[in-house]
Amino acid sequence: MTLAAATTIVFADRVRRARHALASAGADVLLVSVGSDLPYLTGYEAMPLERLTMLVVPRDGDATLVIPRLEAPRVVAQPGVFTMLTWGETDDPVAIVSTLVAAPAVAAIGDTMWARFLVDLLPLWQGTRYVRSNLVMNELRMRKDAAEVAALQAAGAAADRVAAQLHAGEIALVGRTEAAVSADISARLIAEGHDKVNFAIVAAGENAASPHHHAGDRVIREGEIVLTDFGGTMAGYCSDITRCVYTGEPSAEIAEAYAVLHEAQAAGVAAGVVGAPCQEVDRASRRIIAAAGFGDYFVHRTGHGIGMEAHEDPYMVEGNELPLAAGHAFSVEPGIYIPGRWGMRLEDIVVATNDGPLALNHANHALVAL
Amino acid sequence: MTLAAATTIVFADRVRRARHALASAGADVLLVSVGSDLPYLTGYEAMPLERLTMLVVPRDGDATLVIPRLEAPRVVAQPGVFTMLTWGETDDPVAIVSTLVAAPAVAAIGDTMWARFLVDLLPLWQGTRYVRSNLVMNELRMRKDAAEVAALQAAGAAADRVAAQLHAGEIALVGRTEAAVSADISARLIAEGHDKVNFAIVAAGENAASPHHHAGDRVIREGEIVLTDFGGTMAGYCSDITRCVYTGEPSAEIAEAYAVLHEAQAAGVAAGVVGAPCQEVDRASRRIIAAAGFGDYFVHRTGHGIGMEAHEDPYMVEGNELPLAAGHAFSVEPGIYIPGRWGMRLEDIVVATNDGPLALNHANHALVAL
Repeated sequence: MTLAAATTIVFADRVRRARHALASAGADVLLVSVGSDLPYLTGYEAMPLERLTMLVVPRDGDATLVIPRLEAPRVVAQPGVFTMLTWGETDDPVAIVSTLVAAPAVAAIGDTMWARFLVDLLPLWQGTRYVRSNLVMNELRMRKDAAEVAALQAAGAAADRVAAQLHAGEIALVGRTEAAVSADISARLIAEGHDKVNFAIVAAGENAASPHHHAGDRVIREGEIVLTDFGGTMAGYCSDITRCVYTGEPSAEIAEAYAVLHEAQAAGVAAGVVGAPCQEVDRASRRIIAAAGFGDYFVHRTGHGIGMEAHEDPYMVEGNELPLAAGHAFSVEPGIYIPGRWGMRLEDIVVATNDGPLALNHANHALVAL
Repeated sequence: MTLAAATTIVFADRVRRARHALASAGADVLLVSVGSDLPYLTGYEAMPLERLTMLVVPRDGDATLVIPRLEAPRVVAQPGVFTMLTWGETDDPVAIVSTLVAAPAVAAIGDTMWARFLVDLLPLWQGTRYVRSNLVMNELRMRKDAAEVAALQAAGAAADRVAAQLHAGEIALVGRTEAAVSADISARLIAEGHDKVNFAIVAAGENAASPHHHAGDRVIREGEIVLTDFGGTMAGYCSDITRCVYTGEPSAEIAEAYAVLHEAQAAGVAAGVVGAPCQEVDRASRRIIAAAGFGDYFVHRTGHGIGMEAHEDPYMVEGNELPLAAGHAFSVEPGIYIPGRWGMRLEDIVVATNDGPLALNHANHALVAL
């Protein structure tokens, strides 16, 4: 993986700030493995393997990357950021980790670490209280720096180009299966610069009423809505966009519902100002959809944070009172889903800035008739 | 995902056997989430998401699939196997899971579950002892039934066809980057029937000396070894094969080392008989490599189990005294790696059967000169 803006100085600063965050959180050590915390802190992304790779960051001590000897050649050294400790095929890596820090009172555990390693650690660090790593890492990772925002912008622009191809009719729909269109969109995401595709939902007609429908064998017909929701990873940062199109002229019912959705999405974006609680973004979109009588048909939160992961903190959901800060990046994606009939969703990525919400997607927001 | 041989009767039997295994292991409940245990037991594969999907299998009670309401439409009901319990966007799914079973004495936790969910569960089930799910699931998943062996055979045959294309010179090497060849191999794995590619290592010359080298910008030249190690998932089961080729005529040094490797790999396959401890497969290969003076250059275990996961139990490694049983499927992949100069590895998938080791790969085992 090529990480945008990855330099030793950046990593050293992040590890330093992680140590401060550990102290603030009252935790003694941070353990991160597979997932995004590790490349965020070190530039190295661990493969999801039964062979453990784990960065051990004590609050008061140097960071150690415990890594299988086989994987060590892939690590780019970051002098002053971490030292490497390799283990061999017959060693017990969890036991090695447990000896790097005397049984801590509080250990922060990487969110997406495989549970098996925590299960193995529990009897070695008895009496330790375990907390989630986001208690430590959120303060760092949620606030994107300028290079990270630029990376998200570049990924968003690439996704926008695919959406523009959809709107221009360059992606054939009628007569093709959802799966074929999904594969087409995926290939275009790569062609536009993504390193990998994370998802390419294509849902036609009644399938669009299931927000997480996967693309299947359903053939797209004339005269129906087609929901597309796609994104990938580019230089380590994610894109995510949803646009709906109509194969023909939409009925008045669809057009009116879409007008509500469009207004609701714009209101959600506008609510993404520094200082506003995250739940306000959700409420701003939901209020408009509810007022139009579709409240029961908007069955999910309005958005999720985005960065190195397609979904990360902060979440735009009722109950999340966290105030938005400059650099928070998140989706605004309200939807309306009528079971068995149709569904629609409209999504942009937005960054909260001191100058107001900065939208990263600019593809046509209308329900384009094709 | 289309799972080979997936019927309600099969799933019901597996859940019943998992309950028996829980009792044998002295555990009260099994919790599985993302990963292969869940589709193995239910046919449903959870997306790796911050929204928790978890199958709760009490030793004495019916299984419950706790699932986000958004994902529920994707589940194929399996009457008599599990009931569904959906949760909404503002619910706490871990709290819901914790109420399905009164604080158990021993809970078996899915290996690849995200640690965050276990961290959240720990304070809700205090006094519980946590063990790995493989304590329960290994007895089921390691022994592949006839349909599973057939699925592994089909995936192996598809990988063999790509290896044959490599041997036939249909995949251009000299002048291309490792990354370009890797992309070519990946496309061929899909064309031959895989649903996804899990890896396609291409390592030329000195890069082949790093066993887990990824394909990079290195251009392949005349007169060097090219190591390819690739596999994917087909109808839910994995392929994994390694073949080396030489761009030109190999030197005597390379040819002699390869002869050792070839013999060592065949010895490992032959050692894969029912009743033999897994470490005997490792020893059989290692003995030959060591006798030829390359012992220090064979830096990894000889193999890993394979099935729904590319790497799973049992592992062919020194210290693993587990006796092979009929239906155990695993790789045999010794290697020789001379740092900075060259490396080579040869790999087949093998199933232990009552009639002896059944190799699933038949592509030419020689160091083909291209």
